[in-house]
Amino acid sequence: MDDIVSPALVVDEDKCRRNIRHMIAKARQSKVIFRPHFKTHQSQIIGRWFREAGTEKICVSSVTMAEYFAADGWHDIMVAFPVNTREINQINNLASRIQLSILIADSSVLKFLKSNMKHPAGFYIKLDVGNFRSGFHPDETEDISRTLQEAAENELLQFKGFVAHAGQTYQTYSLNDVQKAYTKGSRQLTAITEHFKKEYPGIIASWGDTPTCSLINEFKGIDEIRPGNFVFYDLMQFHLASCDWEQIAVAVAAPVVAKRKMRNEIILYAGAVHLSKDAVEISDTGHVFGEIVKLTEKGWERFSQPIYLNRLSQEHGIFHCPDDFWNEFEPGDLAGIIPVHSCLTADLLRGKFYNLKSEAFFGEQG
Amino acid sequence: MDDIVSPALVVDEDKCRRNIRHMIAKARQSKVIFRPHFKTHQSQIIGRWFREAGTEKICVSSVTMAEYFAADGWHDIMVAFPVNTREINQINNLASRIQLSILIADSSVLKFLKSNMKHPAGFYIKLDVGNFRSGFHPDETEDISRTLQEAAENELLQFKGFVAHAGQTYQTYSLNDVQKAYTKGSRQLTAITEHFKKEYPGIIASWGDTPTCSLINEFKGIDEIRPGNFVFYDLMQFHLASCDWEQIAVAVAAPVVAKRKMRNEIILYAGAVHLSKDAVEISDTGHVFGEIVKLTEKGWERFSQPIYLNRLSQEHGIFHCPDDFWNEFEPGDLAGIIPVHSCLTADLLRGKFYNLKSEAFFGEQG
Repeated sequence: MDDIVSPALVVDEDKCRRNIRHMIAKARQSKVIFRPHFKTHQSQIIGRWFREAGTEKICVSSVTMAEYFAADGWHDIMVAFPVNTREINQINNLASRIQLSILIADSSVLKFLKSNMKHPAGFYIKLDVGNFRSGFHPDETEDISRTLQEAAENELLQFKGFVAHAGQTYQTYSLNDVQKAYTKGSRQLTAITEHFKKEYPGIIASWGDTPTCSLINEFKGIDEIRPGNFVFYDLMQFHLASCDWEQIAVAVAAPVVAKRKMRNEIILYAGAVHLSKDAVEISDTGHVFGEIVKLTEKGWERFSQPIYLNRLSQEHGIFHCPDDFWNEFEPGDLAGIIPVHSCLTADLLRGKFYNLKSEAFFGEQG
Repeated sequence: MDDIVSPALVVDEDKCRRNIRHMIAKARQSKVIFRPHFKTHQSQIIGRWFREAGTEKICVSSVTMAEYFAADGWHDIMVAFPVNTREINQINNLASRIQLSILIADSSVLKFLKSNMKHPAGFYIKLDVGNFRSGFHPDETEDISRTLQEAAENELLQFKGFVAHAGQTYQTYSLNDVQKAYTKGSRQLTAITEHFKKEYPGIIASWGDTPTCSLINEFKGIDEIRPGNFVFYDLMQFHLASCDWEQIAVAVAAPVVAKRKMRNEIILYAGAVHLSKDAVEISDTGHVFGEIVKLTEKGWERFSQPIYLNRLSQEHGIFHCPDDFWNEFEPGDLAGIIPVHSCLTADLLRGKFYNLKSEAFFGEQG
């Protein structure tokens, strides 16, 4: 890793490919469509690892991301973010070239699309199954019904089904909580899908979020899963028990820039502009911004006693270093950091991805 | 602002120029050198607004940023971040072209530079005046003395003085607290500078941070100030009382994508990847990620009752909208958001700056 002079995202390709294969196998076993969310990595190169494993359908969180992946040959893309009508030109352009699916979280937006959609696109209705972010409430069947009737007036708009994202699982602390969120949410999702299937046969129920897709073994009634984070996982997922330590596929390489013996602190070149300010609560330690690991030729290793990144400013990251490991870090060395939220960290380090296996940067701007 | 289709940073050039002139006037009056920190805007265009107002010396927080501004004709640049020895080639290259100053926060780094610096560079010793981030403690005069003697062995390394950044003022809640932090910290900084002046005549005391540079009117004993955030200011500075509302020079333009009447919530296309997760505590409301404003042709206006951005995920921003303003936001409209921390928001929206005055993007990648 001698080529790494400033903060970079070290990507363990073998682990990523294993995570991908594992999720694909799980989807096959449950007979659900696999439509991974590419917002986590935002990389055409990593996208190809999915394609090589058999993936054909993907999900992204912005129109720009859809354009980026369409440019690399992806033909079936869902933009899993409520339609932003200001981007209608980009949406129409994409719809003219690929099999585009969009997300409806507000009936007035569908009204707009009825008049402005010029090319065929599938649309999903966003259902709020307890995340309280966006989408229709499962009780609003009448509103949904009216909305769908209106959409039918533009035959370019094809109703494809319902989409749910159980983001509340990120606030859970046990497998039991995740199970509960999934059971309740998936029942709501499948019930409404069944309800509308009478009138709209062929519609599907699509389910997101990495914690449930990682922890739940049987997707009863669900037709499609859209996990994203699992390709990398991260410290948050590890603490949610969504993954084992060995499944975490990324670490930030951060130059050590100073040591302060007086406070037993080590200062890294890795701040909020590299990691994001997302934190995870560790009992007895409080909020932390990552776990410090030892970078090795093969990747990284945990210290025998966990060391956490305690503070963060724009470019600085600071951690309290126990005496036993004080000599492991000298200015000019690279320390490893398992990021709290790999989606945000990868977004910040776009163009600075380093492949552990090929020992080379594979930077691209998404 | 019809050209804005996705989250952008609306920059009020007049307000920026006024903030710049105001700080320059203040520096002149106090007879201190003005070396603004360019990490906030990271824009060559905005850098020129400073140059047109008479600025010649600047400060940045990374070697990459120094290269970016050197490319636009800046000749006197301080990298106000502890030297990262892994970037020695870039540092030497810059030192061969411009008047470069670097920051020493660890004596072993100076040892490294003694053997590896190939071109003349000034260096400052980082002093920790209560921020507990990096730098020498004011009591460590002997360590500093030894470090300086070692540096003297390479005549390319010129000792320029001491640098302090009172980052703790970001945790203060009153003018009185800021005053106290400044009084104590500046005394430590000027005392040590005076102490070493006997042996190293001509060294200076350089002081950072926007809250003190905004609120303190006389910089006694200080030779140089390095504020950065003041060019934009933000919601955090406003709540620290570092600035008036009218001085805030940026707002994020965020498309409204959905409304949820059931919860009186409005969903914006503006998430953690656009704003950062920095939050500010508002009494009776809790942590917020920005203040919602009404975008107008002239810029933006506060609502008669403050509305805050309550929740944030990767691409979504959500706020509770009082009934009185419910009809102000329709899908497809742009809402304004005063960011909590403009440095991080501007970093995330690089390439997406929109000039309110000229009604045009002035995107550049820093």
